[in-house]
Amino acid sequence: MDQLEQDFLHGLKTVLGLPNPFVPLHEPEFMGNEWELVKDCLDSTFVSSVGKYVDHFEVMLAEYTGAKYVVAVVNGTAALHIALLLAGVRPGDEVLIPALSFVATANAVAHCGAIPHFIDSEFKTLGIDPHALSDYLKHCSLSSSEGLTNRFTGRRIAAVVPMHTYGHPVDMVSLLDVADRYDLTVVEDAAESLDSRYQGQHTGTFGLLGTLSFNGNKVITTGGGGAILTNDAELARQAKHWTTTAKQPHRWEFFHDAVAWNYRLPNLNAALGCAQMEQLPDFLRRKRLLAQQYEKVFKDIDGIDFVVEPPNSQSNYWLNTLRLNQPSFEMRDRLLTAANEVGYQCRPTWTLLHKLPMYADCPRAPLPIAEQLEASLINVPSSAKVALV
Amino acid sequence: MDQLEQDFLHGLKTVLGLPNPFVPLHEPEFMGNEWELVKDCLDSTFVSSVGKYVDHFEVMLAEYTGAKYVVAVVNGTAALHIALLLAGVRPGDEVLIPALSFVATANAVAHCGAIPHFIDSEFKTLGIDPHALSDYLKHCSLSSSEGLTNRFTGRRIAAVVPMHTYGHPVDMVSLLDVADRYDLTVVEDAAESLDSRYQGQHTGTFGLLGTLSFNGNKVITTGGGGAILTNDAELARQAKHWTTTAKQPHRWEFFHDAVAWNYRLPNLNAALGCAQMEQLPDFLRRKRLLAQQYEKVFKDIDGIDFVVEPPNSQSNYWLNTLRLNQPSFEMRDRLLTAANEVGYQCRPTWTLLHKLPMYADCPRAPLPIAEQLEASLINVPSSAKVALV
Repeated sequence: MDQLEQDFLHGLKTVLGLPNPFVPLHEPEFMGNEWELVKDCLDSTFVSSVGKYVDHFEVMLAEYTGAKYVVAVVNGTAALHIALLLAGVRPGDEVLIPALSFVATANAVAHCGAIPHFIDSEFKTLGIDPHALSDYLKHCSLSSSEGLTNRFTGRRIAAVVPMHTYGHPVDMVSLLDVADRYDLTVVEDAAESLDSRYQGQHTGTFGLLGTLSFNGNKVITTGGGGAILTNDAELARQAKHWTTTAKQPHRWEFFHDAVAWNYRLPNLNAALGCAQMEQLPDFLRRKRLLAQQYEKVFKDIDGIDFVVEPPNSQSNYWLNTLRLNQPSFEMRDRLLTAANEVGYQCRPTWTLLHKLPMYADCPRAPLPIAEQLEASLINVPSSAKVALV
Repeated sequence: MDQLEQDFLHGLKTVLGLPNPFVPLHEPEFMGNEWELVKDCLDSTFVSSVGKYVDHFEVMLAEYTGAKYVVAVVNGTAALHIALLLAGVRPGDEVLIPALSFVATANAVAHCGAIPHFIDSEFKTLGIDPHALSDYLKHCSLSSSEGLTNRFTGRRIAAVVPMHTYGHPVDMVSLLDVADRYDLTVVEDAAESLDSRYQGQHTGTFGLLGTLSFNGNKVITTGGGGAILTNDAELARQAKHWTTTAKQPHRWEFFHDAVAWNYRLPNLNAALGCAQMEQLPDFLRRKRLLAQQYEKVFKDIDGIDFVVEPPNSQSNYWLNTLRLNQPSFEMRDRLLTAANEVGYQCRPTWTLLHKLPMYADCPRAPLPIAEQLEASLINVPSSAKVALV
């Protein structure tokens, strides 16, 4: 075993204690009112599309994020799908997204009939690089009264989707500046960044629309769930309408006025979400403590750094992340093997989206930083409960 | 108040007792192990995409329906969307569906990029009329080595979707015969017909694929949920793969091999479903009793009939349905107004799908029976708990 492997395992042990028998990457906790609210929901029999918890959950999320309107939906992919449609993404359009993201970001674009167009990431934020984006658009796009066009494919470029990787906010001031200059609509994929803020403002509230996820591995969970954030009343109304079969209110008639989706969050799952939201500040306090422990311990280890929150930002430290100084798939996989065999669940970042067969032919910018990050990032156990408080 | 109105209200009162204060159309019941299993799920922390209840629920459904394979998904619309894709429905194809159906049937077709093509219903079954379909295809379709084509639009006709209305099975022998003669793939929308059987065989198991729904208003509920049924191992494998982001199994790598969906049923909702399945036989016994009470009481009332299960069929009597002898929107709405004002929640059937603005330009067969049914059907309270046992 080489020095870096030994130091890495020793670092994990120092932060997490012995794996006894296994430390998962991210586990939810249900130590608050989860039982009470879920049982109340069952007792009311309103477990499905009608019930008070969906409304409560939306209000709690609006208050927490500062978004004027929140529409709860069935998961983060559904939220991004509808947000993109509401942003005007149409079949045959291109949508600029980071190559370094979970596959759902690209799938939501594809579900609109649109084509993902991959952009490089920034070393500091792990998110889309506004400066690289700006340089790239100068070269590959044409502006006209019709909007922005990809000069090589002839397709309209309809939107840009910054994704706040592992909770670390994108440099939103620079990103909004580029979007403004190129007349690009911004839809934020904040699936991983509930409570992450940039210059004090909650991620997901900078763009025309933003989206959250409450999958089981996120900072709070509803089993499966997501939300659409916006400050635009009409977009919020449409988001609710399109995610609930576009039925017009009536005592008994079934009159629907648009092709629409069944993307509602069941009341049962929203009840769980309300109880989780009550505990969010405590989860985040402990997760931040855990991140500080990782930062302190890995400061003294050569060859690998802990990824800290970017300047002017507050990260939720959803998934704590280490970065090899020398990108190397071979070393990365050796460390992953060693940690997982001992019982610390670690994983690499996602395979870059343009390397997946179904997106291999999509347009892309040069991706030097994303390529480096792919060969150097390792996610380490990040549950609030493993912080030694 | 005219005689029919008086008789109708009297009939409801005889079956249901006084509305004290309100009798909903269909309410779920959680009197079994619901809380125990949901609590176990919370205690395990596996509320989301991993956990034993999804597997249990799929096995219970397979045993109950006789389908070889069952894939649980997030709702009935998602189930039908994926089933249609698996059946080979492609953008620009037409899919034959009943004009008399909930909007989800048409939306699932539209989500494939395909075009609904509306077919008439049968008076007896309330479902697609195989004989009318056969006559219509003779006139409007062309068969070739490429498959079946709409001779007027030039588009491929890719599949036919019988939907078992309110639990009453379509005449499947005749439907399968037409499908066979015209080389049409059959995908059954059995959203409303868990436990409904045709010649002893469970609905949803006749076609290449079938789909179920567990929305809050169905015979059992998971909050929101659905399932895909098939006897084809490869289709089942693909259904699971496409509804779970098409990720290839690996200890840590994120390699996805197709554009796919996040349509998984959360483990929390599956836990509820397992407890509901345990009670299904009792729900159905009481619902059948309720149907018998309606049948008996309304036999003696002139001008309105109770819709009984079709020949060779066993209906789950999901929603009990009355039918005016003389179709009349005016009379229908008078009865609906009277019942709802007193406190019996009643509703009409769905607005025919070709009358909705987004489907108004879709191709359609003559729809004389569907038009009559739209002006004559009334759903009456149908919860198992209102049966006077």
